[in-house]
Amino acid sequence: MTECERQQHAHLDALLQAYHEALAVHKFDGVLVFSGQPARHFGDDQHATFTAYGHFVHLTGQAHLAHSWVMVRLGEPSTLYLHSPADIWHLPAYLPEEPWVERFRVEPRKTHEPPALPPGRFAVLGEISDGMAQVMGAEANPSGLVAALNELRVRKSAYEVSCLRNANHQAMAGHLSAREAFDAGGAEFDIQLAYLGGVRQRESELPYPNIVGLNAHGGVLHYQHYDTVAPEKRRSLLLDAGVRYRGYCADITRTWPGHDSVAEFTPLIDGVTSLQHDLIAQLAPGVSYVDLHRRMHEGLAALLVEQRLVNASIESVLESGLTQAFCPHGLGHLLGAQVHDVAGLVDATGQRRPPPAEHPALRLTRELEVGMVVTVEPGLYIIPMLLETHRHRPEVNWDRVDQLADHGGIRIEDNVLVTAAGPDNLTPQEP
Amino acid sequence: MTECERQQHAHLDALLQAYHEALAVHKFDGVLVFSGQPARHFGDDQHATFTAYGHFVHLTGQAHLAHSWVMVRLGEPSTLYLHSPADIWHLPAYLPEEPWVERFRVEPRKTHEPPALPPGRFAVLGEISDGMAQVMGAEANPSGLVAALNELRVRKSAYEVSCLRNANHQAMAGHLSAREAFDAGGAEFDIQLAYLGGVRQRESELPYPNIVGLNAHGGVLHYQHYDTVAPEKRRSLLLDAGVRYRGYCADITRTWPGHDSVAEFTPLIDGVTSLQHDLIAQLAPGVSYVDLHRRMHEGLAALLVEQRLVNASIESVLESGLTQAFCPHGLGHLLGAQVHDVAGLVDATGQRRPPPAEHPALRLTRELEVGMVVTVEPGLYIIPMLLETHRHRPEVNWDRVDQLADHGGIRIEDNVLVTAAGPDNLTPQEP
Repeated sequence: MTECERQQHAHLDALLQAYHEALAVHKFDGVLVFSGQPARHFGDDQHATFTAYGHFVHLTGQAHLAHSWVMVRLGEPSTLYLHSPADIWHLPAYLPEEPWVERFRVEPRKTHEPPALPPGRFAVLGEISDGMAQVMGAEANPSGLVAALNELRVRKSAYEVSCLRNANHQAMAGHLSAREAFDAGGAEFDIQLAYLGGVRQRESELPYPNIVGLNAHGGVLHYQHYDTVAPEKRRSLLLDAGVRYRGYCADITRTWPGHDSVAEFTPLIDGVTSLQHDLIAQLAPGVSYVDLHRRMHEGLAALLVEQRLVNASIESVLESGLTQAFCPHGLGHLLGAQVHDVAGLVDATGQRRPPPAEHPALRLTRELEVGMVVTVEPGLYIIPMLLETHRHRPEVNWDRVDQLADHGGIRIEDNVLVTAAGPDNLTPQEP
Repeated sequence: MTECERQQHAHLDALLQAYHEALAVHKFDGVLVFSGQPARHFGDDQHATFTAYGHFVHLTGQAHLAHSWVMVRLGEPSTLYLHSPADIWHLPAYLPEEPWVERFRVEPRKTHEPPALPPGRFAVLGEISDGMAQVMGAEANPSGLVAALNELRVRKSAYEVSCLRNANHQAMAGHLSAREAFDAGGAEFDIQLAYLGGVRQRESELPYPNIVGLNAHGGVLHYQHYDTVAPEKRRSLLLDAGVRYRGYCADITRTWPGHDSVAEFTPLIDGVTSLQHDLIAQLAPGVSYVDLHRRMHEGLAALLVEQRLVNASIESVLESGLTQAFCPHGLGHLLGAQVHDVAGLVDATGQRRPPPAEHPALRLTRELEVGMVVTVEPGLYIIPMLLETHRHRPEVNWDRVDQLADHGGIRIEDNVLVTAAGPDNLTPQEP
């Protein structure tokens, strides 16, 4: 048995054991986890893309298996009800030759109907209506059990860390291909195709839509178009692009200067990169991620002063709220079978822990624990809509800021495992 | 004004006039057409891909504009309620500089709520619940009006034909790039990327998931994986791949022999191509598409006999049902703002016209009319599951059939406009 296979066995042992414990605590005889089904376009016979429910992915690693179910039941072997139409139109469903498959009784099914439940108290998890759950004689998505199972995804097993590390290596190959396409003068569309070619994964399999922003587009935080025409001037590329490996996500961002960058841009990239390294070095069990997020703002304030974008003290920059205008998003989030993994805004008992009022976009408010994998992604952008409310401030060097506007922005993002011995950066640090 | 702009004006004049007539007939004061919204993955903050409702695309040409609405109202100018969040996360919604935009009062909106309706009897079309329609004081998707509006999509205007022709030219560029990747030894994944590069359109914008089938995969009719590893032997490529141009779809299939084809494969491709040309030549107003579909089976029977796959008379091959085993799908379908366009299985009054019992997969049962655009896509496949029921037939040359099995199959598909002067093939006939 390979090390990876051993890890997967151990992962499933622990996971199924924890499922059983959660079932006992919440007084269920079993739980049926639905992978889900693709949405059909209205009035059409074509379907939208499909990604399976996170808990189904957690149990099977299969992120695109529709109409399938996993049953975990006290005192019985776990079952995978595998949708396998075996008709002339489709290939039969494919299961990889991995140890996890042996842990399930695999029952191929042709129907879209839910499997029949034995007598007892059962929960059904996933995209299922209360009405359908009632017909099945089960409870749909009971909140206590869901919170307990979410919590099982917060600390990653050795197997999950391996998957996340592999995903990171695969994604970095894509980033390198994408950078070559950028250097060769490609349009956003070409850079995206180069990335896909580098990771050998199609757009619909990626964990999130890649952000490929040239020039000012780098400052549109959820920019999701890919221009097919290259801009005349090549000032910057912001590439936020991931990949899935056995269901687990990479989420990496790099920012590169272009042939037509102003001289001030590269030192800013270096500054954000250095800030990111400092923040990663601070990841440790017990550290509050909200505090780290605040330290990102302190670092950004220092960078704005150092790079003479603002002529003021670091303290007054922080007080003015300027760093929120330069970086309106959070420092990062939990990462796993979903790119924004579950349970970032609750505590270990499932109680809501909303972000601080002045940092509403922060997706992780917990204290760090061994086994958590988080993204660390400080950013610095020229977003005219946000800076406008600060236009009156004389301490801002507006000439300098405005000449950076058509560079969009900077984000540097890695995926990091928290260990007792310190941070373990899963993202390869390519030159 | 360019010819294209003139065509678009004329198209919208006629279309809005026809909408007004349909509203009057069905006694509505107006109709609100909802583009729709992307589905969110369950328990996640990521979304599936989105394609707008066909009638919204028919009115605007915009196939990916979510949360938007078109109001067509008797005695009032038509309004486009354009979802345009104008926040820091997204680019504002973009409308092309095309004449159609001038025909609408464009009202940008930040909300996801439906627009308020004035007093009167209104229909709401699209993915909207009866409950929501009731709250709006409107009727959701009334069947009579929907059927009347569907019917407006059956005969294409000169503008729509231009769009479909442009889509075909764009798609053919992709087919040529894909063929080069095939000849260069690429995997299905590489061929798909080459196609995307050729059409300059991303996977999520395509009208349907391309089928890129190497070898036996060409015989899996809805094959939708893209193997990332090239097979050792290169026997065949079946490529069914389209593109959208201003909302209108191309849907083209080509089949190519590979370096390792058996000698019998190319004559079969030639035979299916020649049959397709014969069938296209028969497209004329008044011709029943069901009859044409039957003629495809006659042609396939003749080809099976000619190529010595079956040693029997054409009549007995037809009677045996063998051609259905070699080609289980229909001859084609209507094509427009959806790849399988609406109203193929009804008559002009909206009455159901199901396919004949022996041809259940046929998607078009109408008589052809001037302005219809149809696909013509005869196929011939080696599908073991279907041929198995004919294994007892001694007249089949099983040695010859079985050695073709790992070539998958053949489909040749063009997009053709029916005119009074005969068929107008919109698909470029590249060498």
